[in-house]
Amino acid sequence: MRPAHNPRRGRPQHRAARPSRPGTPAPADGLVLYGRHAVLAALANPKRSIRRVLSLGTADEALQTAAATRDLTPEALDRGTFAAIVGAEATHQGVGAVVEPLLEPDLRAIVSRSAGIVVVLDQVSDSRNVGAILRSAAAFGAAALIQQTRHAAPLNGACAKAASGALEWVPVVHAVNLARTLTQLQGEGWWVAGLDGDGEIALDNLAPATKQVVVLGAEGRGLRPLIRERCDQRVRIPIRPPVESLNVAVSAGIVLAHCAKPV
Amino acid sequence: MRPAHNPRRGRPQHRAARPSRPGTPAPADGLVLYGRHAVLAALANPKRSIRRVLSLGTADEALQTAAATRDLTPEALDRGTFAAIVGAEATHQGVGAVVEPLLEPDLRAIVSRSAGIVVVLDQVSDSRNVGAILRSAAAFGAAALIQQTRHAAPLNGACAKAASGALEWVPVVHAVNLARTLTQLQGEGWWVAGLDGDGEIALDNLAPATKQVVVLGAEGRGLRPLIRERCDQRVRIPIRPPVESLNVAVSAGIVLAHCAKPV
Repeated sequence: MRPAHNPRRGRPQHRAARPSRPGTPAPADGLVLYGRHAVLAALANPKRSIRRVLSLGTADEALQTAAATRDLTPEALDRGTFAAIVGAEATHQGVGAVVEPLLEPDLRAIVSRSAGIVVVLDQVSDSRNVGAILRSAAAFGAAALIQQTRHAAPLNGACAKAASGALEWVPVVHAVNLARTLTQLQGEGWWVAGLDGDGEIALDNLAPATKQVVVLGAEGRGLRPLIRERCDQRVRIPIRPPVESLNVAVSAGIVLAHCAKPV
Repeated sequence: MRPAHNPRRGRPQHRAARPSRPGTPAPADGLVLYGRHAVLAALANPKRSIRRVLSLGTADEALQTAAATRDLTPEALDRGTFAAIVGAEATHQGVGAVVEPLLEPDLRAIVSRSAGIVVVLDQVSDSRNVGAILRSAAAFGAAALIQQTRHAAPLNGACAKAASGALEWVPVVHAVNLARTLTQLQGEGWWVAGLDGDGEIALDNLAPATKQVVVLGAEGRGLRPLIRERCDQRVRIPIRPPVESLNVAVSAGIVLAHCAKPV
């Protein structure tokens, strides 16, 4: 359950950020971000409410300065306390933060754009993959990312770490019915290209539209039939057997790099 | 220590594969692969010695058939036993194998090729990234992947899973001194392009050579100065601020897709 991101349940409720209290680490009951880029980008994002800034040992000057802009002081934690909050497995680089989820933008604000690239994920379920896709989306100037509400990867610490800051920069919207969302986009003049190993057009032959939607399917399964049928074009990245497909984040990067080229 | 892959320690010793003995699961003392594609590709690779084939519950027909070609019977394990061998965290899809590391090809066999793409990794340290790079390397027909011996990501189960079979298809060589290896390649007519955020040439302007080497640096740090200087060209993928870099596997995919295009 991710009620904070479920449009049926309304927008996430922001709780007021409270100042960090050094010496009183408590179990985190918010979203825990980790990794230097992810945390510094969150601190620099005025739309992101930050509850606590965490440091393994004394925070360096950059983190202290960034935290100070939010009237926060990094909590210098020992290894055990830090790991208890951030997770022992996480590649945290000694930097963490407890934050609130971002408010989702309205889908209509994205649909009504006059130009751009929108990335749509059809049940991509690995948070690291979604993070890497957000990173590429930001790098190639995509306007937004739309995920289906069900079977979507959580926008958690692993996602934020892989996004390397881009979770703060690329608006993410959850849609209950992705097929209907694509129809809505098409109704407003968006051209919908679905990435598909059996696609009828090779990527090199895709002339990106002014309003371009790129749809990527789940790891392994690819696009669901209903979504595939809804696409205006099915595009393939030519690869050699016996390889059946690329990693979905790699595919996304290749397609976005292509679409972002000056025409 | 990965003595099996350290050229200074000689080639890995192959032990004869012994048939699986259902009912007698033992702690694995070989390399443990997991994931459907990874295990089936290993079983289909005559150069890969397989000791045991593992299944969470009864193996399906495809796994049984593949194992039978190696005179092995999948061991049907309960969840606890399976996790004890494969790891609880692993996204194993209920399929595993205990195998020997592959013999490394000789670097000279790669250097003496008359054409192709060779991927060189300068201290890329995440096994999942290396796995995804191997998958892209296979997809775009790269001839081999060269890693520096020190600080290289282990070619472990996580790598094989991310490679989705490609660990069996793309020869991997470890080099003690990567700068010297690049010089050796250049001496045989290979053209060495290093991927670098500050590169003087945009990827679109890279005309792939008949004998093309692509060098990728570590996550975060990028190419080391010594390696950067050794490259014939430094190539950048044009991205927008505030993004500083792409995920290394995404970068590799974009560059390989470019180099694999028919000229």
